[in-house]
This record gives sequence, C-alpha cells and structure tokens, in this order.
Amino acid sequence: MSDLFWPGDERAGELVTGAAWLTAMARVEQAWLDALARAGVAPASAELTGLVGPAELAAVARAAEDAGNPVPALVALWRERAVGPGAPWVHRGLTSQDVIDTSLVLLLRDVVDRIRAQQRDQVGALAALAHTHRGTLLAGRTLTQHAVPTTFGLKAAGWLTGVLDAAEALDRVALPAQFGGAAGTLSAAVELARRRGHADPVAAVSGAVADATAALGLRPARPWHTTRTTFTALGDALVAGTDAWGRIATDVATLSRPEIGELAEPAVPGRGGSSTMPHKRNPVLSVLIRRAALTAPALASTLHLAAALAGDERPDGAWHTEWPTLRDLARRAVVAASHTSELLRGLEVDTARMRATARAAWPLLTAERGSVAAFAASAGLPGGETPEDDYLGVADTVVAATLARADAYLAAGR
Amino acid sequence: MSDLFWPGDERAGELVTGAAWLTAMARVEQAWLDALARAGVAPASAELTGLVGPAELAAVARAAEDAGNPVPALVALWRERAVGPGAPWVHRGLTSQDVIDTSLVLLLRDVVDRIRAQQRDQVGALAALAHTHRGTLLAGRTLTQHAVPTTFGLKAAGWLTGVLDAAEALDRVALPAQFGGAAGTLSAAVELARRRGHADPVAAVSGAVADATAALGLRPARPWHTTRTTFTALGDALVAGTDAWGRIATDVATLSRPEIGELAEPAVPGRGGSSTMPHKRNPVLSVLIRRAALTAPALASTLHLAAALAGDERPDGAWHTEWPTLRDLARRAVVAASHTSELLRGLEVDTARMRATARAAWPLLTAERGSVAAFAASAGLPGGETPEDDYLGVADTVVAATLARADAYLAAGR
Amino acid sequence: MSDLFWPGDERAGELVTGAAWLTAMARVEQAWLDALARAGVAPASAELTGLVGPAELAAVARAAEDAGNPVPALVALWRERAVGPGAPWVHRGLTSQDVIDTSLVLLLRDVVDRIRAQQRDQVGALAALAHTHRGTLLAGRTLTQHAVPTTFGLKAAGWLTGVLDAAEALDRVALPAQFGGAAGTLSAAVELARRRGHADPVAAVSGAVADATAALGLRPARPWHTTRTTFTALGDALVAGTDAWGRIATDVATLSRPEIGELAEPAVPGRGGSSTMPHKRNPVLSVLIRRAALTAPALASTLHLAAALAGDERPDGAWHTEWPTLRDLARRAVVAASHTSELLRGLEVDTARMRATARAAWPLLTAERGSVAAFAASAGLPGGETPEDDYLGVADTVVAATLARADAYLAAGR
Amino acid sequence: MSDLFWPGDERAGELVTGAAWLTAMARVEQAWLDALARAGVAPASAELTGLVGPAELAAVARAAEDAGNPVPALVALWRERAVGPGAPWVHRGLTSQDVIDTSLVLLLRDVVDRIRAQQRDQVGALAALAHTHRGTLLAGRTLTQHAVPTTFGLKAAGWLTGVLDAAEALDRVALPAQFGGAAGTLSAAVELARRRGHADPVAAVSGAVADATAALGLRPARPWHTTRTTFTALGDALVAGTDAWGRIATDVATLSRPEIGELAEPAVPGRGGSSTMPHKRNPVLSVLIRRAALTAPALASTLHLAAALAGDERPDGAWHTEWPTLRDLARRAVVAASHTSELLRGLEVDTARMRATARAAWPLLTAERGSVAAFAASAGLPGGETPEDDYLGVADTVVAATLARADAYLAAGR
Repeated sequence: MSDLFWPGDERAGELVTGAAWLTAMARVEQAWLDALARAGVAPASAELTGLVGPAELAAVARAAEDAGNPVPALVALWRERAVGPGAPWVHRGLTSQDVIDTSLVLLLRDVVDRIRAQQRDQVGALAALAHTHRGTLLAGRTLTQHAVPTTFGLKAAGWLTGVLDAAEALDRVALPAQFGGAAGTLSAAVELARRRGHADPVAAVSGAVADATAALGLRPARPWHTTRTTFTALGDALVAGTDAWGRIATDVATLSRPEIGELAEPAVPGRGGSSTMPHKRNPVLSVLIRRAALTAPALASTLHLAAALAGDERPDGAWHTEWPTLRDLARRAVVAASHTSELLRGLEVDTARMRATARAAWPLLTAERGSVAAFAASAGLPGGETPEDDYLGVADTVVAATLARADAYLAAGR
Repeated sequence: MSDLFWPGDERAGELVTGAAWLTAMARVEQAWLDALARAGVAPASAELTGLVGPAELAAVARAAEDAGNPVPALVALWRERAVGPGAPWVHRGLTSQDVIDTSLVLLLRDVVDRIRAQQRDQVGALAALAHTHRGTLLAGRTLTQHAVPTTFGLKAAGWLTGVLDAAEALDRVALPAQFGGAAGTLSAAVELARRRGHADPVAAVSGAVADATAALGLRPARPWHTTRTTFTALGDALVAGTDAWGRIATDVATLSRPEIGELAEPAVPGRGGSSTMPHKRNPVLSVLIRRAALTAPALASTLHLAAALAGDERPDGAWHTEWPTLRDLARRAVVAASHTSELLRGLEVDTARMRATARAAWPLLTAERGSVAAFAASAGLPGGETPEDDYLGVADTVVAATLARADAYLAAGR
Repeated sequence: MSDLFWPGDERAGELVTGAAWLTAMARVEQAWLDALARAGVAPASAELTGLVGPAELAAVARAAEDAGNPVPALVALWRERAVGPGAPWVHRGLTSQDVIDTSLVLLLRDVVDRIRAQQRDQVGALAALAHTHRGTLLAGRTLTQHAVPTTFGLKAAGWLTGVLDAAEALDRVALPAQFGGAAGTLSAAVELARRRGHADPVAAVSGAVADATAALGLRPARPWHTTRTTFTALGDALVAGTDAWGRIATDVATLSRPEIGELAEPAVPGRGGSSTMPHKRNPVLSVLIRRAALTAPALASTLHLAAALAGDERPDGAWHTEWPTLRDLARRAVVAASHTSELLRGLEVDTARMRATARAAWPLLTAERGSVAAFAASAGLPGGETPEDDYLGVADTVVAATLARADAYLAAGR
Repeated sequence: MSDLFWPGDERAGELVTGAAWLTAMARVEQAWLDALARAGVAPASAELTGLVGPAELAAVARAAEDAGNPVPALVALWRERAVGPGAPWVHRGLTSQDVIDTSLVLLLRDVVDRIRAQQRDQVGALAALAHTHRGTLLAGRTLTQHAVPTTFGLKAAGWLTGVLDAAEALDRVALPAQFGGAAGTLSAAVELARRRGHADPVAAVSGAVADATAALGLRPARPWHTTRTTFTALGDALVAGTDAWGRIATDVATLSRPEIGELAEPAVPGRGGSSTMPHKRNPVLSVLIRRAALTAPALASTLHLAAALAGDERPDGAWHTEWPTLRDLARRAVVAASHTSELLRGLEVDTARMRATARAAWPLLTAERGSVAAFAASAGLPGGETPEDDYLGVADTVVAATLARADAYLAAGR
C-alpha cells in the first residue's frame, strides 16, 4: 500500500488495508466455523483461506453498499466456494458486526504490535540521547523566548517520558473478540446448538465462543455490541502516541531552523529536497510526523462521537464511521512511529551550537539567577557570589530517574 | 475506486483519486509549460500527457516521501520522458506547492460540479415532495415528543431549505489557481524571463500566469501560499452539504422505525439486508449518509487548523494535512450527495400512517390549541369553538415561499 | 465579564454574556408583543425592559434546567411582572426556540459588528505594513528552512489577504429572525389572530413577524427551525477570522524568537513578563491569539455536528449544544480580533535584522537563482551575469494588487 | 455557579470555577511555602488562605492578560498581603506553570471524586435494572429496525458495561503535582537552597517537592512541563464517561418516543415542560446528557492537539488552550453524570409495552429463528419444532456475568 495523499504511507505496509481486512474477516469466520465444528454444532469445518482473494476486493467493496457492510456478500461467496459439509455452515450464528468488529481488532492488534516495537526502539534511542546529553547545555525556551539554562539531556528525557506514557497506554489496551449475533444474544447459535441436540446449548455456544476467541488469540469478552470502549480506548492510545511524536517533531522542526541550528534531521541522500531549491534540507520527517499529530485528535474524537451515539442494538450510522477512522488513525500512527524512530536514531545534535547560543544568551538565561541572588541578599541569606556552574538545578536528577524508568520498561520486555 | 472501509465509495468514481491527481498535476505542469512557451520564455512546450501513468502511481507515491510531496519525483520523470526542446523546461519557475495546490483545485472543481448537479436533482425532488405533501398531515415532534401538527410538505420544505443553503454556499466557492514559486514571488520565473530578454519580465510572467490559469479554467489569483481560504471555504461548503443531507437522513432513519413507519427508503432488491436476518429492510442509505455527516465536521476542522498554523512561507506540517483531508471530505460528500439523491427520488411516504398517527395523537397535538383557546377565552376574545381544521398555521405559506426559492434556483440554471 | 481561564476575555465586554442574553431575550419578546399589539391581535403591548434583571441571572439559569432552556421560567416572570392588559400576552404564539434563536442572532450581530470594526482596523494596519515594507528584504522560509528572498511587505500582504478573506466571509453572513412557533407553523399565533377576528389570520401573523423582525433590525426569514445554516455559517466565518489571526500570530511568534528577532510585539509596560524571570518579554499577544485559533475549529465543528443531527421539528440534544459553543466561539473571536489589532498597530519590525539575516543567508537564498542561471546557460539563454538585485520576482506587484484590494474594501465602507 | 448557556450547570457547584481556582492556586503556593520553610530554605512560612478572595476574581482575571496567566498578579498580591518573614518567600523557586498545572490537578481531583461517586451510584442503579429486567422481553433493534428479541436486562447490562469501562478508566487516571520551575530544572529553588547553606541543595529541593506534593495529596512526579499526558489522559477518561452516558441517553430518548413508549424519564413536577405546549413531557435529562456527549469529544481533541504542539520548554499557545477546555469538559461531565444518575434512579420501564411491541413484531423478530430452522432442516439436524420460548440465547448468561463484574467493582470500594 501507498497513498499519494499521505507520503510515507507505505511504511504501514499491508496493515489495515482492504486486502488485510478480507483476510482477517476470513480468519474470524474460519475460527468460528472451526469452533462450531469442534463443539459438535456443525458437522465439519471447511477451509476458507484464500477463497476470496485480493483480486475480488473491488467487487466485494462495491457489493458492500447494499447491506452497508461487506459481510453478507462475502458470506455468500464463502458458502458458494467452500467445499464439503461445513460449507453451508459458514457464518451460522454470527452477524455482520461480529465479523467486522473482531476482524478490525485483529488488524489493530498487528498495528499495536508494530507500534510497540517502534516505541521500544524509541525508548532506547531517547534513553541514549538523554544519557549522552546529560551535560549538554541548552538554552531553555518558554513562549518562544530564552528562559533559563537546561540540558539537551533533559529535553530528551521529556520526550522519553511522553513516549513511555504512550507506550504504557498502549500496553493497557484490551483486544477482545466480539461474538454476539444479531443483537448480542447469540440466539441463532444457541438455537443451532439446541437443534443439534446439545443438552445445554448456551454452554455449548459459550464454549465455542471461548474456543474461537482463543484460536484468534484475542481476549475473551462478553458481546460488547454498542459498548464501543474497545475502539475509543485504542484510538486514545494511538493519539497518545501521535501526541508524543508530534511534540518531538515540533521541537526538532524549531531547533533545526537555520537561525537556531541546534538539531538536524538524519542526513539521507535525496531526503528533504525541494523541486526548485536544490540546496534545501527540509526537516521532512518532522513535517510528516507533525502532519499526523495534527490530524489524529480529530479522528479519535470521531470514534468517541460514534460511541456516544451507539444507540439501539446497532446504531444508524455511528458504527459505520469507525471503520475508515480506525484505518486512517492506525496507519498514520504506524507511519509516524516509523518516522519518529528514524528521526531519533539519526538525530544530529550540534552541541557546540547549543552551548554557543546558551553562552551568548547567558545574561538573559541567568537573569532569574540574578534575581534570586538579589532576593537572597535582601533576605539576608549567605551564599556569597554567584557560582560559575550552569544553573541546572535538578536537571541531572530528573534525567537519571527518567532513564531508570526507561530501563524498567525495556527490562519488562513487553 | 472503491473502498471496503467506506461502502458506496465507488459512487465518487475517479474523483480525487491518486490516478486523478497524477493527471491533474500533469495538466498543471502542461498549462504552465505551454504558457512559458507562448510567452516566449521557454523555446517550446512539450507533451506531458500520459508520460507518467496510473501504473506508476505506487512508485511515485513511495518516492514522495523523500521530499514530503510527489512533485520532485514527478518532475524528474517528466523531464526525462518528455520529447523535444521543451522537455527540460518542465516545472521551471514553479514550486511543488504550485502544482499541488492548483491540481487539488482542479480535482475539487470536478467534485463541486458533481455535487452541484446532485444538489439540483435534490432540489427538484424535494420541491416535488414539498408540493405533493403540502396537505399531508404529520405529527410535529420536538425533543422526540409529539408537539403540534405539521405537514410532511413543510418538513420537506425544511430539508429543501437546507439543501438550497448548501448549494448556494457551494456556488460562492472560489477556485483559484496557485502560481507563486518557492515563496510566492515567482522569482525563478521572472529570472528566466529576464534571461530570455524580456524587457518587462514581471509582466511577462504575470501574463504567463494568466494564460496558464485561463487554460485550466480557473479563477485568476495572486499567489495565496499561506492564505488557505481556498480550502477552508471549500471544506465549509462541503460540510454545509453533509449537514443538509445528514439532517434529512436523521429524519428518515427515525421516521422509518417500525413503530413510526411514516417513511421508507426506496425498495431496491438486495438493498438493506442483513447477514443473518433475511427479513430486514434497513434504511441503509440514511445510515450511510449519516456516517458521512458525522465524520465531515472533524475533517473540515482539520482544514481550519491547517490554515491557522500556516506560518512562514510554507508551514512545517499544516500544509501536508490538507491533502488526504480534502480527498476524504470531497469523496465522502460526493457519495453522500448521491445517496441522498437516490433516497429522495424514491422515498416512500406513507401518508395514511402519518395521518393515522397524527389523529391518534390529536389530543396531545392540539393541547397547545386548547391552551390558546382557554387563554383567548380568559382574555375575552371572540372566536367561538375550536374549528375542525388541522391547526397548521402558516405551514402552507412557508411551503409556497420555499418552492418559489427552489424555482428561482433551478431557473438560474447554475 | 472576565474569565480567569481565558485571560483577555474582558475585551469582549458584555458580548454574549448571560446578562446580555437575558436582555436580548426580553427584546425579542418585546418586539413580538409590540407586533402582536400593532397587528391588533393583542389588546396592548406591555413594557418588559428591566423586569428581569442581572441579579436574577443565577436563579433563571437554575430554573432553566427543568425545561432544558430558560424561556419558560422567564415567560412566567414576565407575565407576572408586566403591567396592563398586554401582560398575559407575553410570548403568545411563540415557542422557546423562537426566543432563543432570535436572541442569539441579536447577540451575534453585535459580535459581528465588533469584529468587522476590528477587521477594518486590521486592514488599515496591514496595508500600512505592506506599503511601508514593500522594499524590506526578508528571508523567505519554507518548511522552517531558508528558501528564497521575499519582502516583509509581501508577508504583510499575505496576512492582509487572509484578513480580507475573513472580513468578506463575515460580510456575507445572514442574520435572520426566527419566528415559527412550536413546530415552525406559527399555529398558535394564527389561532389567536383568527380568534381575534382577523379575516386572514395567516396574513396578520406574517405581518406581525415582519414587523417584529424589522423592529429588531434582523433579516426577514421563514421559520428555519431545524435548518441551522444561520449558526454554522456564522461559526465558519468566525473561524475564518481566527484562522487569519492565528496565522499572523504564528508568524510573529516565530519571528520574535531571540535567534531570529525580526519582529517584536508592541512594548507595553508589564506586558509579557514572567512570574520568575523578570527579563522576559514574551510575545503574549501572539500566544493568546494562537490559543484562540487552536480551539476555534473544534467549536465550529460542533455547530456543524448539531446541524447534521437536527432531526424532527427540534432535535434531542443537538440544539442545546449550540448555545455555549456560539458564546465561546464568539467571545474568543472578539478577544482574538482585539489582540490582533493591538499586535498589528504596534508591531516592531527590525528591518536591519531582516536584511542582515537575509544577506548572511544569501548563498542559500539565491541557490535557486544559481540553479536557474545554470539551467539558463545550459539552455542557451542569454542574460549574462546574475544581477545584483534582490531576486524578488513579482513581490512588489503582488503587494500593489493586495493594497488595491484593501483600498477597495475600506472605500466600500462596510 | 450556574450558566444560562448550559442549563444544569449548577450541578457542578463550585468545581473548577474561577473562585475555586484562586483557592487552589493559593493552596499550591501554601504547600510550597510550607515545604520551603520545613526544608529550612525559607525562614518561615506565611498564611496565604483568604488573602485574595472571590471579590477580587475579576480584577485578577483582568490582570492575567499581561503575563498571559494570572499567577504573576497573584504572587504580587500574596507577597504584599502575607504577614511575617515568610511573606517575601511566596512563590520563590516556582514558575507560573507549576502553580497553574498543580492547581488544575487539584480542581480535577475533586471532579474525579465527584464523578466516581456518581458512577458508583450508576453502577448500582444499572445493576438493579439489569437484574430486575433479566426476563423483560424487548424487541432488539438494529439500524432502527426490529432485529431479534432481547431483554431490557441485557440492554441495561450493556449500559452498565459502558459505565464500568468509564469508571475503570477514571480509576487509572494519575493526578501528579507539577513542580519544575521556569524550565523544569527547579534551578531557582536549588539556588536558594544552596545559598541557604544546604550541603546537597538538590536533595533539599527534591525533599521539599515531595513534602509539598504529599501535603496536597497528589502523586509524586518529576516535572512534566511539556509532557501533557496528565491532562490528555484525564480528558479521555472524562469522555469515556460522557460516551457511556450519551449512549444511555440516546437509547432513552429513542425508547421514550410516543410511538415506542417503552421508557420514560422520571416524573418530576415541572420537568420537561414547554413554553407553549403544557402537555409535553420531554425527556429533558436525556437531551441534556446527549448535549454533553456531543460536545465532549471535540474538547478532548483540543487537549490532544495542545499536547502534540507542546514545544520548547513551554509552548506558544497550546498550554493556554488547556485551561478553559479542561474546565468545560470537567464541569459538563459532572453535570452529565448527575443527570444520568437521576435518570437511572427513576427510569420508568413499561414492561408491558415492551412485551406488547415484541409480541406484535414476533414474526419479524423470529424471522432469523425461522431461517435457522429452515437451515437446520436442510442440514438434517433434528430438533423438531420451534419451541415457544423467547429465543434469547445467552442473554441471561451475559447479564449474570455483567452483574458479577458490577459486584466486584462495588465490593472493591474504590
């Protein structure tokens, strides 16, 4: 996959594409059919893999309009093409929402895994930056103006904290299966189990649900039809990621301004050029990361809106808004994660420029210290002359504590 | 085009697709190169049509990451493949933003044209509904409860007003070309004209801009680099459309609830079915329209955010957020427009059910009238008994005036 | 009014406050009651002014919860306190929505007037900046990096274009009255007119509506109950304003960074200080303007969402979202307009620093020119040596044309 | 507090008001000053309580514009008015952001506590509804149409799941103090400790931070200046609440339509009336809850945007957007929580009407069962006649499991 309208989109590969969704839907139906068979409800399973391939994607997509979702058209194809006594049993007991929700969770699990790996990389890279630059003097800037001295190590530790917060948010995300039938009662499945002669058809179906859920590696869950926490929480965790990356990119974009020149993006041949200005080296990774961070919050808000409007046993529009919103949010997050990892791995830190700027601004950067000294004198404090050190307060302590948190995160090996 | 995540997407055809964008970018470069040649700056033009085809879309999209946009990669291909002395002149004097902004305007012009045509259809269909049902009694509902009587004609007139408002908003949208060079000064183009020996190179370039703009059929404009009104205003007009359609769909979804049953979507074989409930006839058009209306406002807000953050002579991320946002907003609007037109053309109005419900609720629906009568009596007004009419006030007058507005709109023939 | 959570809020004075709303609601009821009396429906009017004062604001606000809006509680107070035979006629024929919508339009008209005046000031200030700095060399910056030379006059002209676009959008906003009764049929009013003996009660009521509308100075309109274009279009126009100001503030914040230092906010004693850093001169106006521009798009999107969900003859929640959203958007826009006017009036432009930076970056800023020269040479163009001028292309022409637009706007005297 | 633009606002009492903020800011300064004194840095503390009272709120708010925040003006007043040798030590070592961020966390802690209590009530009420109505037959509805039978108990269990999810999200929210000084280094505080003669001034200051944090009852934290997870995560948790309540309100609004009539809001004299229609009983709680749920996602998205733009050591606008956004989101959530609790406590369930509607729609509601039976027959399954039961599948099991989760939540006693 690539997208002319979202340069870098190919970094998300086949995550949450139409083709991947087809495959995931087939996996869900397969897991359910296998479970029906194992539970003795269906006489046998049937192989669904590959029965509807990427070449039919457009046709399936077009057929999806009639029902408002692609599942009915797919079910018809699977039943037609599957072989053996299990074939007519495809999708028995399920509803479209089961297949769509569970398959989206599968797709998003891959997204979560990918981003987690990227976040681990970022934690490593940021910890290295924070460690290396514990002593790198940097002009602190607030509301665009020089404030007091800080270190680049402390700035990196702040970035790191954001990434760790986002990573921990993602670690808490639940990835449950959805098997509920038309209205969350699994009534058709229970009816089939009853007709098959199960003494306790409810137990049989509950067992099949647990079986299918385990086969998919998802978290067991009761039907959550119109309780959309799964997707809102995931959306929030993805945005926590784009927040963390966007804020890093905002800093890098600013600090790589030529008049500041303290940071530069990794030098890559051909990267950051212009169609008419051959000399330019644009901070293109930062630009692309910021792009993602600027669009993500509105997408997550759409997921919340959908959750708030999830009336009845399936709502009249809200559910349908989730699919492309999740796709766009997820793919953009993956791309931004990749951009950020690359940015951090090769970030060029001009420590001399940092120090020179800080030293040139020293009277301003230490004006606070001067007023502290004046106040101290007026308050009769001893303490003598202003020392020659860098007026960095607890900076080093904060870096150390942040590094310890990063180490613990990495050691936990999630 | 179709999109598994957005059923019905194929209704937008090739509008604002990657392939369409490639073509539009080539058209912009062609218009500029032709104009350079006609202005005597370039020695000749060269044919660019088809030099980079849809088959190369993925490669171009991937190549776009390095510069953050696809133009540099495309320019290299065009220069390499074009024939004759004009070939090396491709893109001379322009910057990526010129090509991207102007080509997006071209793509969006097609979108505007398509939606305008749909809106005309809708105006016609709604005028017919309003006219036909001027006398169709309907229970007015406020905050979900029965209020006072109204007519379905008046409801349709309200829908019509929304569509007319949206159509007029779209009529006001400006579609300007963007030719400004690297920072809005067209300096490279002027330099080339100077070197070619033009006595007044600024005039020569201004002439070329006017020429290229005319060739593209766009509105002449000064460079508008970081003034993003073009896209915010267009976004707002598209959302005015989805607002109008969404509100219609909201009403249709409610009134087609089985307990109400006053409206039904057009009956189409296979439409509105369920994967497990064969009997269902879901109001799927309304559901899909509402989906668009629920997601559109957040997209338009992203365009405004981009405009507010458009700093420097090109901003560090905001510009890049516009492209997919415009695409999604535009395509979704086209699809929703089409869905709405189809919905309105075949809307089934159960006038008997409307009347029966209103009559059954008559005591409630005329409770206001009762209190008016009681007040009138207390105030010593004559007026005698409460008449047997339908207590419809100015409903018919409002319908008539709305129809006149619709007629004027249709007669204006925009 | 002031708001600890929104420093500067007092610049919006009493615009769209609770007290102002009370007054505006009384004005609407007064205009209607006067019109009923003049139309011979009510026996007399009654004076409502001041019957419910600001001291009762909290009580009215609390009473508003029962009905979900303040009108029923207010009507009870007005009827109780008004004197004479007109007193019981207060609100007869209207519904809460009429009073709320029309009074909000009145409040927003004052907002529009205030912002229009500010925008005229801004157009004047920006035209002066653009004119003064037509020749002020400035380093053009794209994606944070030096691009090609431009002038500060051209940058100011770009800002001016944004403000003019926003001003024209505001000029197009319609400010209609809403008089429709419970469901847009004015049935109660017509019933009263009939009982009073009017031969053509519909005409009598239509006349009263026109009369009341004229008394309020609003645009005549048919009932627009669930067609919410009035507020969405106004919201969009306000956001067009915050977009234009936000983009100016973004530039000022960047260019007043100490490492760039090309612009500075007006020096005002006590302005821009810090609680601990006495030396700081923060670009606080820009910060506060940007704050508004970052929050406005989401507010406008809420208005659109409300419009799309405006079902039935009054929706179940969407309408109620509009009131605080309009208030916040309007007051923030007024404050930001005021901040921007002040910023522009006193903006300090360090032309020497601009020129020095541009000259220091000259090799980069003219790298494009160098590549143009190289290309020209390869293409056999004459043109000789690279001239010593400032490579500004059409910059001056664009400034001139923008100034002409500004002059026309100011001359039109809206 | 009350707000004419947000009926019901007074339910949030003094939570997150201007006056409450003043008090909270004083508490933060007090805790810090006490800690400085206890650490032996300041010679003594001083009493700050009540030095700046609500009567000065407007003056402080106006004074806040100069610095862009209210702290500098407040510090001047506190230092002027406090008594004794501790007076000049007020705010020494802190920066405005410390006071603002920490005081907002204090305000939000009260919000969290209030909402948690409401959520516990709701869990109780919903568990009772789910338990009582385990056997209450209800027509399941999907995409507005009758689907299969369900129970009202299962619907209530779904609502309950949403509330539990939101409650658990709120339980996970961290409430850290922020003490970092001008740029997160606490340099001024360390300097003061050094001048006071502390051998390890960093340790002394770290101790004071821990002391002040403990005094405020907040979670210890390193300075988190431009890492805004605290507020984004809190915002997300509040929106999880409004999502859960909004979805309940959406269902109640629909099911209390007169044509459906299965639910009714609690009957309260004077509640739900209309200014012109005396008979109406509007579901005004649901309307007001939905209002909150429709506006909350956009507010939370603003917090995320602010986080993504949090550049430098304090950003140029993003930080300032948080204050009113947090206030509005928090107060609206509290009000909506209260409305929801009241709604659930008194919800009227018309079980007879539910059953009657389901029975009338039985052929449709059991069409799925019919097709299952037909399929079963074709598949050679035994099972005989369709039984006379209610085709409710696992409904009862799901209710039981949800009740167990609720019990565990309530027993945990958070």
